[in-house]
Parts: sequence; structure tokens; C-alpha cells
Amino acid sequence: MQITRFTDLSLRVLMYLTVPPDSGPVTIDEIATRFDVSRHHLAKVVHRLGQSGWIVATRGKGGGLALAQPPSQYRLGEVVRELEGGESLIDCTSQPCVLLQGCNVRAALNDAQQAFYERLDTYTLADVVRQQTATSIIALHRGRRPSSPVTA
Amino acid sequence: MQITRFTDLSLRVLMYLTVPPDSGPVTIDEIATRFDVSRHHLAKVVHRLGQSGWIVATRGKGGGLALAQPPSQYRLGEVVRELEGGESLIDCTSQPCVLLQGCNVRAALNDAQQAFYERLDTYTLADVVRQQTATSIIALHRGRRPSSPVTA
Repeated sequence: MQITRFTDLSLRVLMYLTVPPDSGPVTIDEIATRFDVSRHHLAKVVHRLGQSGWIVATRGKGGGLALAQPPSQYRLGEVVRELEGGESLIDCTSQPCVLLQGCNVRAALNDAQQAFYERLDTYTLADVVRQQTATSIIALHRGRRPSSPVTA
Repeated sequence: MQITRFTDLSLRVLMYLTVPPDSGPVTIDEIATRFDVSRHHLAKVVHRLGQSGWIVATRGKGGGLALAQPPSQYRLGEVVRELEGGESLIDCTSQPCVLLQGCNVRAALNDAQQAFYERLDTYTLADVVRQQTATSIIALHRGRRPSSPVTA
């Protein structure tokens, strides 16, 4: 039982954007390099995050990506639930199950999934980037400017 | 986010065994046929369920599979947790994440997963096979004996 790679990368992008860069915009190319993922895949993630209104992309020279709201406004449960698409934890249909009619396992799993999201909603993006994580992100930002005095 | 196919099939096997057959033992071949899965895959599932002490297999002529305990003794959270192997919901290591050190996302997801299992533990195997599900299982059992008068 794991979140999808798409959700995983989405969370990393949102986390990356919580720490404003020292200067200049954050671009898709930069994030793709920092996280060592394909630009193509990352572009899809960024598009999806924009569709949900979580990030804003400014076009043109000097444009880039930024969070649409302060990190404390992003509830992790809401974010993960929307990215996972409300998918049920069990797939009863792609390989039709003979127990399907009236089976209560899916209902039990859905109830437990509800508890999962409720608990996850007690965390915001601000909660998960505190301390060391923010330090890691700052280091990533600075890594792109080797001439920066703070990189030494 | 889905449970593994292995866990899915394990739950189906446990459910199938909640309803004692009208006569004779339940065999791997029978369950494989009823659920339309490979005997090889099912044998692995059955072996695993036996290792966990959830089912007992009697060898020899007249032998077969049965639940080790009454269905009300199987907490779904315990079963799913053990089958899923305590795996974290996010994979931070197979593709090493630059945020790993001190990242709090995994801790938040683990906490939510804990809530998931706690809620799932409020259900037992007996709860999820009530009513229509039990009826479906009985129909499956009877399906193997077309001559049975209740099949008509």
C-alpha cells in the first residue's frame, strides 16, 4: 500500500516551493534537476498542481513557479486525497470478484481510508517542512548557484 | 493507493473460508477455480495465511483448508497490516530523495496509516461477511456441486 509516484512527486514539489529562493524564479528545469526526475513527468505534475490551484505559474522571462497560498493553508489530507483521485483501496472490478455483490470489505477499507485522510488533515504543508526539511530545501536552492557565498 | 493484489486475494480466501462447505474439504484447486486465479499464486497466499496461523491445512485424503479461529477473532487491521508488511506509504529510498534527511512527510503519512489500521481494527472478518456476502460465498460453494438441490 503506497501513494502513487505522482502524488509523491507532487508533495516534493510543493515542499520545494515552500522555501522562497534567494533570488530568481523557480523553474521546472530546476526542480527536475534537483529531484533527478524527467522534465516531462515533472511538467505533468506541475500542470496538475496548477489545475488544483495549489501553485501558480508565471510565464515569460523572469517567470516561474510559486505556491498560491501560504504553506499553512495546505492540508495534507486534502492534497493527497485529490491527487489519489478518491480511488478505492481495493480493485473489485478490473478482475471481477465473485463476492462483489454485497461484499463489505470495500466499505470497511473505505471507512479506514476516511480515518487516514482525517488524520492526515491534521498536518499542513507548513508542518512537514519545519526544521531540517526546510534546511534541506534551502541547500537545494543554493546548490543551483555555486557562486553564492552561502554555498561554501 | 491500493492494497496489494496479494492482500486482496488473502482477504478473499479468508472470506471464502468463513462459510463452512455443505460437505467435504475446501481445497486450493476449488478456491482457484471459484476466484479465477492461478493455482500457483493462490498456493503462495494459502502458505502465507498458514504461516500467520490464520488458516489450517489438513493433509491427505479428505484434507483441506479451514479457518483456524472463528471469523469474529480476525481483526481486519491486524490482517491487512501483517500482509502489507508494515510498508511505508511513501518510498523515500529506492529513488533517493534529496529531502530525506529530516523530512516530516513520511512521519505524517505513517501517523495517518496508524489511524487507518486502528479504524480497520474495528471490523472483524465476521463483520464483512454478513448477509449478502455470506450468501455469495454459499452460492460459490454450492456451485461446485451442480447436483445439489439448492443450486436450482
